[in-house]
Amino acid sequence: MLTGYRQSIDNIDAALIHLLAERFKITQAVGRYKAAHDLPPADPAREERQIKRLRALAKASQLDPEFSEKFLRFVIDEVIHHHERLREE
Amino acid sequence: MLTGYRQSIDNIDAALIHLLAERFKITQAVGRYKAAHDLPPADPAREERQIKRLRALAKASQLDPEFSEKFLRFVIDEVIHHHERLREE
Repeated sequence: MLTGYRQSIDNIDAALIHLLAERFKITQAVGRYKAAHDLPPADPAREERQIKRLRALAKASQLDPEFSEKFLRFVIDEVIHHHERLREE
Repeated sequence: MLTGYRQSIDNIDAALIHLLAERFKITQAVGRYKAAHDLPPADPAREERQIKRLRALAKASQLDPEFSEKFLRFVIDEVIHHHERLREE
């Protein structure tokens, strides 16, 4: 019982890791573009739209919207660190 | 340029939210099973295996292994809160 659940969790985690890897590839390209064009690392208006959209998607898929917002902030914080590092280079 | 990148990021984020929703559906079933069989909410040995595996997958897909570990801990912390709530009910 627990073993079957855990195999599914492990499959989902592998998919999550590979999607996150692709996401950071794109945000690294965004970071290089922003650094080259002297744009600020963070974009609060864009973040607000993202949070609103993900909360709606979370609700529709029975995920806690609070968690989806915490999750996006967790990922965006990491992205902003990357962008700041690119600016300093 | 930025618009194209952002459309890809938005697609990936939607996929991440839906996968997370599925993951929590499974961990909720695990939580009910653990509560019914009086098993502890956390399982440090299982978590250690998960972290080791995800760090290897992260490395293979050019994602920062430190980030993959932070990410899994972030998700597991949420799961343990859910399990603790189920035990109290």
